[in-house]
Amino acid sequence: MESASAAEALIPLFKLEKVLDQDQAGRRITLLGTVSSENALLTLERAAFPSSLDTIAALQSTLTNVKNLGANDIYAWYLANIQPSVFAPDLKINLIYPCTPAHIKKYSPQVTRVVSETPSVYRDYVRPYMQRKREEGRLNWVYNIIEGRTEQEDIILRQSTDLGNDREGFLLLPDMNWDRKTMGSLRILGLVERRDLWSLRDLRRRDVGWLRRMMEKIEESVEKIYGVERDMLKLYVHYQPTYYHFHIHITTTSHDPSATQATLKAFSLPNLIAQLETLAPECDSLGDTSITYTIGEASELWAEVFGPLKERRLPESSK
Amino acid sequence: MESASAAEALIPLFKLEKVLDQDQAGRRITLLGTVSSENALLTLERAAFPSSLDTIAALQSTLTNVKNLGANDIYAWYLANIQPSVFAPDLKINLIYPCTPAHIKKYSPQVTRVVSETPSVYRDYVRPYMQRKREEGRLNWVYNIIEGRTEQEDIILRQSTDLGNDREGFLLLPDMNWDRKTMGSLRILGLVERRDLWSLRDLRRRDVGWLRRMMEKIEESVEKIYGVERDMLKLYVHYQPTYYHFHIHITTTSHDPSATQATLKAFSLPNLIAQLETLAPECDSLGDTSITYTIGEASELWAEVFGPLKERRLPESSK
Repeated sequence: MESASAAEALIPLFKLEKVLDQDQAGRRITLLGTVSSENALLTLERAAFPSSLDTIAALQSTLTNVKNLGANDIYAWYLANIQPSVFAPDLKINLIYPCTPAHIKKYSPQVTRVVSETPSVYRDYVRPYMQRKREEGRLNWVYNIIEGRTEQEDIILRQSTDLGNDREGFLLLPDMNWDRKTMGSLRILGLVERRDLWSLRDLRRRDVGWLRRMMEKIEESVEKIYGVERDMLKLYVHYQPTYYHFHIHITTTSHDPSATQATLKAFSLPNLIAQLETLAPECDSLGDTSITYTIGEASELWAEVFGPLKERRLPESSK
Repeated sequence: MESASAAEALIPLFKLEKVLDQDQAGRRITLLGTVSSENALLTLERAAFPSSLDTIAALQSTLTNVKNLGANDIYAWYLANIQPSVFAPDLKINLIYPCTPAHIKKYSPQVTRVVSETPSVYRDYVRPYMQRKREEGRLNWVYNIIEGRTEQEDIILRQSTDLGNDREGFLLLPDMNWDRKTMGSLRILGLVERRDLWSLRDLRRRDVGWLRRMMEKIEESVEKIYGVERDMLKLYVHYQPTYYHFHIHITTTSHDPSATQATLKAFSLPNLIAQLETLAPECDSLGDTSITYTIGEASELWAEVFGPLKERRLPESSK
């Protein structure tokens, strides 16, 4: 697609075949169809309202088909339409064309399962899976940042060995999903320098002091650089994470929480530290506890480990 | 508001004064204004898309002002408008009229704070606060259900003393926020019969067996009654909860997670059980750990406890 007008010309050519998925409380819909006989995915998403008073007033003046659904005392609720207006878009649209079967699978609805990972399931199946992922070289982009080869201009803070322990270094950089401007949706990524932590499973009782110092330093830095008060910052890690090098997600409480912050997926760092602090003596790390979390059926971990376990078959890593 | 047409007649009378709040990724906006010189709140919310193929095709045919924002390889993204159509509403609207200052406060944006509740802050300030709330009689509706006086027709399961222990009873009923039909948004409430558990803080190591049996029975019952596979069920509790009688929220993984499931607010039951199982010997309950969570600045707990603590003043309960 070379020009805006070429891209715009594709939209009327989209021939709808199937509603593939609908999410975000029904406000996003993904359609499968064709453009010039090739597969294409079209995603329609309700746009945000404009926020200026004048534009809202203009929008309000176009309300039509107002239909009352119910009323009780001082409360009433309705459905309505608005006239399209050039200064307030109704929709955001994404087009993928031509798209592959992999795209269609990615945008099809996926069943999410709750799995209970005991210490032995972790040791026998999940940790070997993590090791395979690490060996596939998927962490090169992380090492490139840590070793100073790429994205150095993005680094907000590099706290290297100067905490008196060469295993205490970490760095902060903007999350690639953040526009780096809107404070209400601030997202920062914290990457530790040490490479022996694959996930929260590797956090040990002896790491508590370091984790506390790191948390303190992250909050202090983000407060200083972005002016967000530290008691409005959320620090959490994912389990399962997308990649197996320990990293921390930092966002603010003014962010509407979504799936990425959901229980059974996001584990808050301060509560993990509290758990480590009150861990039974026979446990040395969070690898010695059961962890319950959600994963998609389309994930490799489901296909290779938890799907087979559910059917009482041996997972792949043990074959 | 006596009739639909009377309610509909109010909408054109709304005089916009101020944008009070905008959330849900910008797709909901709350407006403060007046109707006939009295305060009114108008909430505009982007409606869900229709899901039938024909309606989507009709909607697609009305796309106008398609403006390409960018393109890269097979990906392109746009803004656009659609023509209003009687079979697909663009908006949901709520009107509160006349509204009070309390309504305006409730719908104004609220700062959310992250607080760290140590065992001593819990013991000295938060538990006394909980006790005051319990004494205000706010739990009567819970006791009415447990003792069989109200909502008995709604009860899905009553597991009373027949588990061999008179402290093991609990019951399940649909959450009042669930329409009782849409399986994708299933929400069930689990209420324990015993009254000595105010919150997750009261869960003890000795409760592990009971909690596991209760979880098993809840999953089995919801699977049997609603046909939702048990590994698609999420069980979690809130801290702080809305009321101080221990209760469990049950929903499905097909539900888009929102703030009610967010980390630092929702604590998954299986992970709390795992934490209890690996708790250090000097701790008897989750009251002996630090818990970090989010609360709104407009909450009583912020006003009475955590706000004063932040400013190094004595919380109210100690005065």
